[in-house]
Amino acid sequence: MRITTVGLDADDTLWHNETLFRLTHDRFCGLLADVTDPETAKARLSEVERRNLRLYGYGVKGFTLSMIETAMELTAGQAPASVIREILAAGREMLSEPVEPLPGVDHALAELSETYRLVLITKGDLLHQEQKLAASGLGDLFAAVEIVSEKDTETYRRVFERHGTGADQAVMCGNSPRSDILPALEAGAWAAHVPYVLTWEHELVDLPMDHPRFAELASISQLPDWVSSLG
Amino acid sequence: MRITTVGLDADDTLWHNETLFRLTHDRFCGLLADVTDPETAKARLSEVERRNLRLYGYGVKGFTLSMIETAMELTAGQAPASVIREILAAGREMLSEPVEPLPGVDHALAELSETYRLVLITKGDLLHQEQKLAASGLGDLFAAVEIVSEKDTETYRRVFERHGTGADQAVMCGNSPRSDILPALEAGAWAAHVPYVLTWEHELVDLPMDHPRFAELASISQLPDWVSSLG
Repeated sequence: MRITTVGLDADDTLWHNETLFRLTHDRFCGLLADVTDPETAKARLSEVERRNLRLYGYGVKGFTLSMIETAMELTAGQAPASVIREILAAGREMLSEPVEPLPGVDHALAELSETYRLVLITKGDLLHQEQKLAASGLGDLFAAVEIVSEKDTETYRRVFERHGTGADQAVMCGNSPRSDILPALEAGAWAAHVPYVLTWEHELVDLPMDHPRFAELASISQLPDWVSSLG
Repeated sequence: MRITTVGLDADDTLWHNETLFRLTHDRFCGLLADVTDPETAKARLSEVERRNLRLYGYGVKGFTLSMIETAMELTAGQAPASVIREILAAGREMLSEPVEPLPGVDHALAELSETYRLVLITKGDLLHQEQKLAASGLGDLFAAVEIVSEKDTETYRRVFERHGTGADQAVMCGNSPRSDILPALEAGAWAAHVPYVLTWEHELVDLPMDHPRFAELASISQLPDWVSSLG
């Protein structure tokens, strides 16, 4: 066994994302403060997002549509035009937000890219993810980019087959147990969890601490050493 | 030279798409009939769509957001809640519309897939395009699916390199001169234009009738014979 390929999640692993969604959640609650309390607004928005996942998938555009739909539901179909305008503006701002790599990311990726093939594996809006990668300045470090609609076992098997030498010679690194860790292990890859300060509530599951191919890292800065220890 | 790979556009080549957008345009104009005439509404919507392409990319979700934005502009920021609700509903209906292959598509693809590697190459919302392919029943005929944010020369070069034996041994077939034909020829591939009953106004350019690697076909049913004539 010899590791040839390292897959990396993007949002909340290489750069902030959930923080931006949470800020927009707060802004959304503020817009509806005359109508309902923040907890109700937040809960209803989460419910609408979950209901729409099947139709809209992941990403800012679907999230914006879900905010508009939630505003309609909370106002019995009579949301003021000013609220709709503000939601559109919030979505546009999320799409044009500057992208800054998280601490340690530049260094870790530069080091890893000297030895391994790096593959970005992420969900979300296709164009927006490509734009974020370009804006991050990390694009040149990646041998391939895969923007996928779902991160399941089959996805990891396919991606590591296509861009590497198979899952058993690959490491996946990300912040989401459910999307980055469990299905990658199931596909036969190694997996390193790097926690983000926030975790999206749809993604909370237990980590497989006893799994022989799993590592919990405090920071992405520890990734190069761990990968290199695998031989 | 021997053709090994055939790339196929999806929307308006394998199944209807523009028809659905046009119907929704009409519905949008109807919603704003109290405010403005259909020509003005249509022109403004096209303008907003074009302006938002850079931010939203292609696909139904961005189109829905553009309809809401246009309704706001045409009502001086005071669109009635009923209009917003109707636009959201129109977007959802577009996303869940049944997908029916265009006449001759099943046959042509089944025949081509016996000899060549078929690759679907399309723009639009990632999840929605995957869902349409699954709903079409054509998924099993394709060796690979590439959903891309832009169809330029570099895209075709990369896709035919990755999934085939390079652009010079590949044919691209689609309805859009600007997205399917010109950049594929530029990349060194062969290209067959199959016209759709409607062409999106952003895509109108002249066809390269004299190009040695180009063919204008009346129907996709002629594609297998043309590809096989290339040797």
